[in-house]
Amino acid sequence: MASERLEPLERLTDMFRRLDGVGKKSAMRYAFCVLNFTDDEAKAFAEAILAAKSDIHQCSRCQNITAGELCPICSDERRDTGVICVVEDPRAVFAIEKTRQYGGLYHVLHGTISPARGITPDRLKIRELLTRLQTEEVSEVILATNPTVEGEATAMYIAKLLSPLGIQVSRIANGVPVGGDLEFTDEVTLRRAMEGRYLL
Amino acid sequence: MASERLEPLERLTDMFRRLDGVGKKSAMRYAFCVLNFTDDEAKAFAEAILAAKSDIHQCSRCQNITAGELCPICSDERRDTGVICVVEDPRAVFAIEKTRQYGGLYHVLHGTISPARGITPDRLKIRELLTRLQTEEVSEVILATNPTVEGEATAMYIAKLLSPLGIQVSRIANGVPVGGDLEFTDEVTLRRAMEGRYLL
Repeated sequence: MASERLEPLERLTDMFRRLDGVGKKSAMRYAFCVLNFTDDEAKAFAEAILAAKSDIHQCSRCQNITAGELCPICSDERRDTGVICVVEDPRAVFAIEKTRQYGGLYHVLHGTISPARGITPDRLKIRELLTRLQTEEVSEVILATNPTVEGEATAMYIAKLLSPLGIQVSRIANGVPVGGDLEFTDEVTLRRAMEGRYLL
Repeated sequence: MASERLEPLERLTDMFRRLDGVGKKSAMRYAFCVLNFTDDEAKAFAEAILAAKSDIHQCSRCQNITAGELCPICSDERRDTGVICVVEDPRAVFAIEKTRQYGGLYHVLHGTISPARGITPDRLKIRELLTRLQTEEVSEVILATNPTVEGEATAMYIAKLLSPLGIQVSRIANGVPVGGDLEFTDEVTLRRAMEGRYLL
């Protein structure tokens, strides 16, 4: 009976817990925040959730998320259509775009190959990438999946798949993060940083 | 134009940022999670927000949050109605209830006195506490506001207010947290722990 009286709060806490990286305490804190929202704010929040789900889908070309048919990057005529940067998820696109350095297009895989979690290559947008390489004039594919075990494996898988196509395939560099400290850099990263050293 | 295409996502990110302790990066991560929700999950989330806002209000007796007229604690006949534990917010009630040690009632202030943030005593549920002390038979009031500057000030304010009523007023103890380390305990806490030492 006691719990019945707070059921709406528990339901909301449960929903917050479904978000990545949100534990029991944070979920409860967020639910309490919502209680302190004005009615208008709560309504706006609920509507934002539904709108994000209904209005956002994947770009028909690069699979990045967008509210239009083509994403803003694919429909930007100033971008270099000869280079495709392959990333795991839309967040990586945001991160690379923030550098304001890259002028090519993207291809979003929406995941990495992970036998442990049952994610086989056919569950990623690899087929769509191959189709693009057949229909678009692409000179280079940059594999920018994360430098994790799964990201590396996915990059290697795609590199192998693309090797017969005669397209230049590259992988982003590993190394010591700028502003980082050698003392706190793990051995593998440090070894990669040494291997990837460049002449001055 | 570019931003227009992702407007629903930005609106959702903005809503997440209004939650306590959620920065730009977390808000975006949460928004992306919502995109990965099923339609049913997104609908359940939106409904949970609206339901929490519309169904949960304050207990007419102790001001704790509840979906009923009286909260589960106030309507539990086994509780000791002679003791009232005064706390800042409903989360403190949850925390104390988890100890399974306290059998009395609560009174939720919904904040602390904070001249800096313009929160004067009349904005807290202090008037409601005084009314309870006049109409209920209370022998002790435990002041369990947080051990922060504002929590202490609020406790002291209420203690002074209650002193003419001839009710026993107590304050929760300060000290070294169980499982804590003296080395990492701040001086003020350590001094309080020494002052509050008890004979074995």
